[in-house]
Parts: sequence; structure tokens; C-alpha cells
Amino acid sequence: MRIALAQINPTVGDITANTTKHLDFIARAKRQGATLVVFPELSLLGYPPKDLLLKSQLVTDSLNALRRIAGEVHGIDVIVGYADRNSQPIGRPLHNAVALLRDGQIHSRHFKTLLPTYDVFDESRYFEPGPINETENLVRVGDVTAGLSVCEDLWNDEKLIARRLYHQNPIADLNAAGAQILINASASPFVLGKHDFRLQLFGEQVRRFNKPLVYVNQVGGNDELIFDGNSHVLDATGNVIAQAKDFEEDLLIVDLDGFSPSPKGDSDLSSPTGATPVGEGRGEGRSAQSAMRHPPSSSPLIHPHATGLESIYKALVLGLQDYVRKCGFKTVVLGLSGGIDSALTAAIAAHALGPDRVTGVAMPSRYSSDHSIEDARLLAANLGTHFHLVPIDALHAAYEKTLYPTFAQVADAISGGTTGKDPTRPDPAADLTDQNLQARMRGATLMAFSNRFNHLLLTTGNKSEIATGYCTLYGDMCGGLAVISDVPKTTVWALSRWINEHFKKELIPWRSIEKVPSAELKPNQTDQDSLPPYETLDAILHRYIEEEKGAAEIVADGFDAATVNRVIKLIDRSEYKRRQAAPGLKVTSRAFGFGRRMPIAQNYVQTVP
Amino acid sequence: MRIALAQINPTVGDITANTTKHLDFIARAKRQGATLVVFPELSLLGYPPKDLLLKSQLVTDSLNALRRIAGEVHGIDVIVGYADRNSQPIGRPLHNAVALLRDGQIHSRHFKTLLPTYDVFDESRYFEPGPINETENLVRVGDVTAGLSVCEDLWNDEKLIARRLYHQNPIADLNAAGAQILINASASPFVLGKHDFRLQLFGEQVRRFNKPLVYVNQVGGNDELIFDGNSHVLDATGNVIAQAKDFEEDLLIVDLDGFSPSPKGDSDLSSPTGATPVGEGRGEGRSAQSAMRHPPSSSPLIHPHATGLESIYKALVLGLQDYVRKCGFKTVVLGLSGGIDSALTAAIAAHALGPDRVTGVAMPSRYSSDHSIEDARLLAANLGTHFHLVPIDALHAAYEKTLYPTFAQVADAISGGTTGKDPTRPDPAADLTDQNLQARMRGATLMAFSNRFNHLLLTTGNKSEIATGYCTLYGDMCGGLAVISDVPKTTVWALSRWINEHFKKELIPWRSIEKVPSAELKPNQTDQDSLPPYETLDAILHRYIEEEKGAAEIVADGFDAATVNRVIKLIDRSEYKRRQAAPGLKVTSRAFGFGRRMPIAQNYVQTVP
Repeated sequence: MRIALAQINPTVGDITANTTKHLDFIARAKRQGATLVVFPELSLLGYPPKDLLLKSQLVTDSLNALRRIAGEVHGIDVIVGYADRNSQPIGRPLHNAVALLRDGQIHSRHFKTLLPTYDVFDESRYFEPGPINETENLVRVGDVTAGLSVCEDLWNDEKLIARRLYHQNPIADLNAAGAQILINASASPFVLGKHDFRLQLFGEQVRRFNKPLVYVNQVGGNDELIFDGNSHVLDATGNVIAQAKDFEEDLLIVDLDGFSPSPKGDSDLSSPTGATPVGEGRGEGRSAQSAMRHPPSSSPLIHPHATGLESIYKALVLGLQDYVRKCGFKTVVLGLSGGIDSALTAAIAAHALGPDRVTGVAMPSRYSSDHSIEDARLLAANLGTHFHLVPIDALHAAYEKTLYPTFAQVADAISGGTTGKDPTRPDPAADLTDQNLQARMRGATLMAFSNRFNHLLLTTGNKSEIATGYCTLYGDMCGGLAVISDVPKTTVWALSRWINEHFKKELIPWRSIEKVPSAELKPNQTDQDSLPPYETLDAILHRYIEEEKGAAEIVADGFDAATVNRVIKLIDRSEYKRRQAAPGLKVTSRAFGFGRRMPIAQNYVQTVP
Repeated sequence: MRIALAQINPTVGDITANTTKHLDFIARAKRQGATLVVFPELSLLGYPPKDLLLKSQLVTDSLNALRRIAGEVHGIDVIVGYADRNSQPIGRPLHNAVALLRDGQIHSRHFKTLLPTYDVFDESRYFEPGPINETENLVRVGDVTAGLSVCEDLWNDEKLIARRLYHQNPIADLNAAGAQILINASASPFVLGKHDFRLQLFGEQVRRFNKPLVYVNQVGGNDELIFDGNSHVLDATGNVIAQAKDFEEDLLIVDLDGFSPSPKGDSDLSSPTGATPVGEGRGEGRSAQSAMRHPPSSSPLIHPHATGLESIYKALVLGLQDYVRKCGFKTVVLGLSGGIDSALTAAIAAHALGPDRVTGVAMPSRYSSDHSIEDARLLAANLGTHFHLVPIDALHAAYEKTLYPTFAQVADAISGGTTGKDPTRPDPAADLTDQNLQARMRGATLMAFSNRFNHLLLTTGNKSEIATGYCTLYGDMCGGLAVISDVPKTTVWALSRWINEHFKKELIPWRSIEKVPSAELKPNQTDQDSLPPYETLDAILHRYIEEEKGAAEIVADGFDAATVNRVIKLIDRSEYKRRQAAPGLKVTSRAFGFGRRMPIAQNYVQTVP
């Protein structure tokens, strides 16, 4: 049997464009002689549609689109992901569903059983689980009985998942009901190391049930989430028979042979003996078992190897590209400080969009060093982007003149006029005020470029500074997309070095990589005046944010208690900034944003003596 | 039996302070001779704790606090809300629980069955449902068998809820198992009209099962959510026997009599004949049935009556007060434009904190009218707040000088130098750029006040403008709390008039209420240049946002198709602004923010021809 894996990049909610894409991939699969073509989870709507699912009209429109596609299906079977209405009077109003389209009709409808409701997933908010009886998810395709499942249904292996969340195991049920082959329509977002974990997890599943697996994942960026594709076929021993591209659309065609035309339920006859990838796509044939390193929840981003860096780079390029395109922008603008964060962001943007669509703006203040402007200019030249120099000295002077006399009056009034302070001499609050003002002048300047020329503004903060609040709300946090907000500073350096090495030229100025990091908002400032060394900071952040370890556990890992307490306090106290941050591309198992939902007005304190 | 309803205002995560508060209320209840004191849902943690629940140490700390409280409980029974660990190897790791504390011990533990996962609620993210067998939630208290439930467990009446979400009905099960009285620990946030709906819903429940109800709700503001209290006791016919204060902490003491010391399960003997409120709290004795008007989902905010306006006012005052206090601030600052939105926000802040803790800043530009400054000054005088005048002309000029030559160059380069345009003459993009710049100068100015004097900045946008994007990101959207972001413009007017009438003086200048609304960012601008009349706009917004109606349904309600299409497009295209908005106090059934989760990079279009 020849199966086509349609690894598509849908736009969320764009039912018209997604319908066209389905018809295109179906036609291509048919031309290649496929018996069956399988699309990802919720392929008609794009994943995740979030609260668009609460719009009844959207569900109606997508059901109409499903019927329209079905009407054009002849001579091939098609499995499409969509949202169906729950026909029962009790329970949530929708199912996360796949339909089998055949002979111009919707042949059958099948519902997802396990609904992820953690991290970035909210499926219990929308969907009623599928039937307990998994025989409803068996279909005959060609001469084979296929067991259909959707994404999470496959992620319930007792050996690898730390805690079984679910009381059911749909794959075991499908197997018991007589499935000869497992087909999983998925929308599984990228996390560093996750594809290797998938291969191990799915390998365990196919070996346990001695059934091959066809796994079709979505590809593309949708807001914070980047779907890596990597659709593949495993044989019943867990070997990768064929694998689609990563971070690109693909139509992977695979011949699965050796299925006896067995009656349904006769699983003894259902061991396939071989399978061959054909046509588009790659067959890598690597073993799932040997490729496994670690589950994503414990994969430290600190010092990842080159393969990991390449996958982060590809993910960020795709995430940026799709966010810009799907939001209807053509061009981006960003501030270039001469530092490493803006340099890395610019390099990713130039790769994603082409350098002609990227505008860099250097905005030196009275505290900027000469090398800042030089490095920003060199970066733009190396990448081939547009570049503007807009000094903010006149703005800075205007703010001082406008605000500081009033501030001096108010400060005097508060202290009863007895301070006798020189109002131009900074105290800590005045110092912080002045630093934030500079960042906000730059933010307003960049937003003016955005408004005037319809550029999307990219914000350039990394995970370490967003974690600790080492950033200015409405200042350097301005922007429609936070490209590297899930990349810790130590990985920013590693990724920048990797880019220069991979492309074999100095795209990112070496001096930007090697200089001591500084916000340059007052004389002789460095990040380490305010923060622990980044190696230490990132190691603590990883434990606190991604691993959800408590203060005592982190100290037990060998860190200084005072430093741990200080870092945790910085993180907890910066929640109000992150609440107003731009959406950021997720590459770790726990990013800030939608998948981490913290109260602001709270006072949970954990400190270690 | 004398029962105490401990309507407390906990701070989320502040286990130490919440423990002290529990011990204080227990002591007070004991002094009043109560047999039992009941606290709200998750009372030890404050509701909602959100992802703090993922911190294992927090669960440990709160279990220790529970044991500590239990150790001090003698001569009274205590029901406390807390998060318990799931002792089973499968399922989510926590239960939403209440414990009965007695004789220095944790006597028994009971788990919530129905876990709301919609709107602002995410309980399936954290909790495993309680046991199917509700006999586990029966306890003997005094000589009565009480059936314990938690919040949503009570919200499952077939007659009143449009769709039954749940397959279980814990209250029916408790009744069948022999409960003589129903006790519900709750954390039910304020929505206009919701308390009347509660009375009707709970009235249906008690009449159906012929059992009295003790309902204990949390009070206080926690981020977006405002809990109104309104704890109460219903007799078995649905009459309100006693009701606690709204929007304040309260300890309500009620004597429930007429329970025969019946054996468990003998429900025929369990009809109480009378009950008397005593001590603190009010006994209003109004009938739940007659008090009911409408369920919250269909309560239009347009032209609400005085009772509704008063409840919104009290909610916003409490929400602001608690956000400021629980975030550790003492004072607030806000921009005063002379318009109605900032005037209403200032009045709420002055009431919540005292006028001496409020600073208003008028920031006129070259486009501000004289009456803007006069009205801002009059407002501050009427309320007694601090007031500063900071004209932004010099900032505006500095931005023009800094940016516009570069913009003219870039525009020329794009057009090949052939436009011949006067760069000082605005085209639409330049015009919008200039308007946004003015708003951002003001945002930076206010944030400088915030940084310099440790004021929390309040943002003043109403729901109509945040819905349509008639506001500037990083400009007038700057702020830590959006006080009236869930109040539509027509209600802003009604609430302002109500304040002047209720307090019998011109707190808000009448001219601010009566003037034609304008952003004053260019000459002769009014809101209605860009938006439909507010009466029409708010009516469409209510249908689209709160009622989730589609374009065709709204047109069928009698609105012009072109206007409906335009408003929906404005709403959908402004999602990126709302993603970065400050948390806003929720007073309607669907506020922007945490309870409305929309993708940004999406393209679902519904238009009506």
C-alpha cells in the first residue's frame, strides 16, 4: 500500500487557503499513485486555533470546507484533521476529529481520546474526548485495517512519561481491536531534542504492539509555536522507514508492504515485513532507539551540540518567517545595539526574509561606546540589511528638560524641601528612571519606523534577561515578535558562533560575540553589575523554569543559596513585565508566555537559608 | 447548629499571611459559639493560584500550613480549601480539596468533582477530579450529615445552564448519599448580574433536593478577577436566610435549626424548619427567585440600572485596591486628558486608595484644547488628588527633528526620489506615526513618574477602544493595571453620571461627561471619525465578544452589515495590541485577557454581504 504523508503548513483560521492546500496535496498524492493521503491534526483549521473554536460560524465554515474537499476526492482515500460538533447533549460542544474522505463523501469520523491540557495546550477547554470504545477508530484502507489516532493519543507510554496523566491508552485499545497499522495525525510543536524523544517514544509503542506507525506532523510557525514537521514512518521494530523534511512542507510517499489481507482483528497476520520510501522526501533509515538522547523536559540548552543549535536556528527562522507572513507583513525593523542579541535576531531575520526586507536602526545615546555603532554598522553590512543611524541625544535632552524640574519639585515636596539634593545628581530611583527613559525613546523611535513604513518590529531580548526582568517594558521590550526570548544568553553566544562557523563567514561581528555584555544606559555599565555570571544564571534559570525545581532542590544541585534566592526573586518579581511581553518563539520545554501562567499580584516566597 | 461563613480575602501564594488570617477567623468564629466555620475554595492559597500549583514546594508548604492550622483547632470544626496531592499513580498530580479540621487533626479530605476549564478557568490543567462515589464527601458535623462540594460542583443544573458540560452531578449524588445540608466552598468571580444568577441557580438546586445550602465565596481582587463575596445561606425552599457583605471580608454567623438528629441517608427527616442569622453580617431574607433577572451571559452592559452600576463601581474599587496592595504599591499615577475615561479611572482610584495616594498628570500637546487642561485640573481638585502639568511640545519637536528627516529620506528612496512630497506634510502613514508618537511620549512620561516615585501606573482605556484597537500600544496602553478595560464606553458614561449622582457632587466634571470624545492627536479629531457611534459599537461588541455571535447573527439582530463587518475586522486585527495589554479588571461575562485566548497570526474572516 502506498501512503502519502501530507506535511502541510496551514494558516490558523484561513479555511479558504487551507482548503486549496489540501486539494493541491491530494492531487499530488494521487499523481504519485498513493492509496491514502494523511494530513496533520486539525489540518483544515491550523493548530492551535485557540478560542476561534468558540465561534460557531467557524465550525460551520470548516465543516462546509470538509464536505467540499470530500466532494473532490475520487480514487484515493484522504484523512483530514478538523473540529467536529459533539452530537451528544452532554459534554463539551466539539471533538478534535479526523475524517476519512472516500468516493466524494465523508466516509467516517473519528475523535481524539486524550486531550492535552498542560503547558501550551488547552484542549479540555474545547473538546469532548472520543469514545471509550476504540473500534470506532478502526478503518479499512486498501486491504489493511488501520487504527486512527490523533497526536496525544500516542503519547501515553508508561516507560517514558514520568507520570501517566490519562486513565486510557487508545493505542493499546486500537491494537486489541485489531489494528494492523497505526496512523497518527499530529500537531506536535518543536522543542529542542523533542524529535529524538518522539522517535524513542513511538519506537516503544510500535515494538510493544508490533505494528508499524505512520506519523504525520504539522509544519510551520503559528504564533509562539513552531511545528518542525519530521513526519515519518516506523516499521514494527521501531526503525525509521522514511522521514519527511524538517521545518518545511513535504509530501512523503511510502510503500508499506507485507500486510496480509487479514480479517479485522486477526492481528497475528499483521506483521509487515518491509516498507520502502519512494518519491519526494527522504528516507534516513536511522534507528529510533539509538537516536534517543533525553526527553525534552531535561534537555539543558546550555552548551548544546551543533545539531541542536542547527535545529534551534531552523526553528527560529521558520517561526519568524511564518509570523511575519501570516500577519500580513513584508518587512521587519529592529534596533541594533552592537550587542549580540540584536545581532543574532538580525541574522535570523535576514535568513528568514532576505536582507532587503530587514531594516536595522542604531540609536546611540550619550553612553554608547564607539564600538557599538561600528559593530551595528558592520553587522548590517555583513548581512546586507538596510541600516539607519538615529542618535537619541536630542530626545534625551528634551525628556530631561521636560521632566526633571517637576521631579525635583515633587522630590522636594516629599522630603519637605530638606534634602538639599542637586536634582541633576542621580539617586537610585532617578538613575533607573533615566535608564528606562533611554530604552523607551528607542522603543518609540522603532515603533515610528514600524508605523511609518509598515515594518513589523522585532524585539531582541533573550530568555535570561526576560527571566530576570533585565529589560525595559515599553522600551527594548517593544515589538510584535520576540524572536529569541526563549533562548538563554549562553545559547545566544553559542548560536552566534555556530552561524559564523556554519556559513563560513563573519556574519555576526566577532567583537559582538566576544565583548562584555552591557546595556550602555549609564557610564561603564555591564550586565554583571546586576546579574550573576550568565553561565550560573542560565543553569539556575533552567532548573527553576524548565524543570520547575524549588530553591532547595537547586541549591542541592550545587549552587550558592544567596545566588539562588536572588535569581528566584528577580524572576518572580518580573512577572508583570512578561505579562505585557510580545509573543516569543518557543524552543525549550517551558517558554514564557502562553505555556507559563503566573499570577502577578501574589506573594509566594521560597528562600533557602 | 451555628455555622460561621468565613468570607476572607487571601493573597495568592501568601501562605504565611493566609494562615494567620485563617487562625484569626477561626478564633472569631469560636468566640461567637460556632460549631463549624467554613472557608472558601483553595482558601489557603488564594484563588486562582495558576501555575504556582506546578511548584511542588508550594504544595508542600501549604500542606504544612494546613497541618499547623489543624493543630490549633479545638472545640470547633473547620473546613479549609487547599490543594492536595493525588495519591494515585495515574492522573493529574493534584486535587482541588477541602479538609475538615477537628480536634487538632486533619479529620478528612474531600475533592472537587467538576473542574471548570473555560473562560478564565483552567482547572483541568492542574487537578484530577474527585471520586465518583460522593459518599466520600459526606461528613458528620454536630448532629447533621453535611454534603461537601466545591464551587463548580454546584453549577450543573439542567434547567438553567445552556449545555451540561459534565457527565456527573455531584449535588444529586450527595443528596442520594444522605446529605442533610449542602456546604459549598467557592471562589466565584464577579460578573455583572452574576450574584442574582447564583441565587436562582442555587435556589433551583436546594428546591430540587429540599436541602439548605451554606455557600461561602472568596472576596477580593486577584489580578483580573474580582471576587464579590456575597456568601449566603439558603433554606430548602430557596429563601436567603442570611447574606454576607459584598466586596468586603465578613464573618457571617447563622443558626440553622430544625435538623432532626437523623441517621445518615434518612433524608425524609432532614427538612429544616427555620434558621436565624446572628452576629456579624446582614440577613436580607430576599427570595432568590424574585431577585433573578438574567444569566450573566446575556446581561447587556448598555444602560444598566443603578444597582448594576453600583456593583460595577464597588468591583472596580476593590479590584484596584487589591491589585495595588497585593503588588506592594502604595500610590498610583495616571494621565488625565480631560476626557471621561481618565476621569472615571481617577475617581475609582481616589475612592480605592484615598486621593492623597493618586497623582494625575496632564500632558497637553499642540493639539490639546484649552478645556482639556481645565477639566483635568478641575477633576484633580474635585477628587483632591495630586496634579502635575507636563506639556509634551518640546518632546514632540525633538522627535520630529530626530526622526522625520530620516523618514523623508527613506520615503524618497522607496519611491525613487520622485514623490516630490513635502516631508512635513502628512500622508496617512505619517499622520498615524505622529499620533502614535504623541501617545508614546505620554506613556514614557508617565512611566518616568512611576519609576521615579514608585507609583503604579494605571491605564485608562475602555473596552470599546481596546476592542477596536483605538489606542496606542506602548502609549496610552502603558500601565500595570487596566482599570476600566472591561467597561464599554456607554457604560463609562453611565457610571460617571452615577458617581456624581450617588455622591451628590460633581466629582467628575460634567463637561468631561458631556463633551464629544476625542483623542486630540490631530486637529479637530473626534472618535467618531474612526468608529461608529458608541451606542451602535457597544451593542455590536456585546454580541461579538460576550455572546460569541457571528457576523450573520449580529446582522440578523438588526445591525447594518457594512458596520458589523467593519467592527469585526477592527476587533480581529487588534489582537496583537491586546496580547501586550495590561491585566484588566473583569466585570462582564467575557473580558479581554486571560479568559479570551485568540491567535494573532490567523486569518479567519467572516463577512456578511
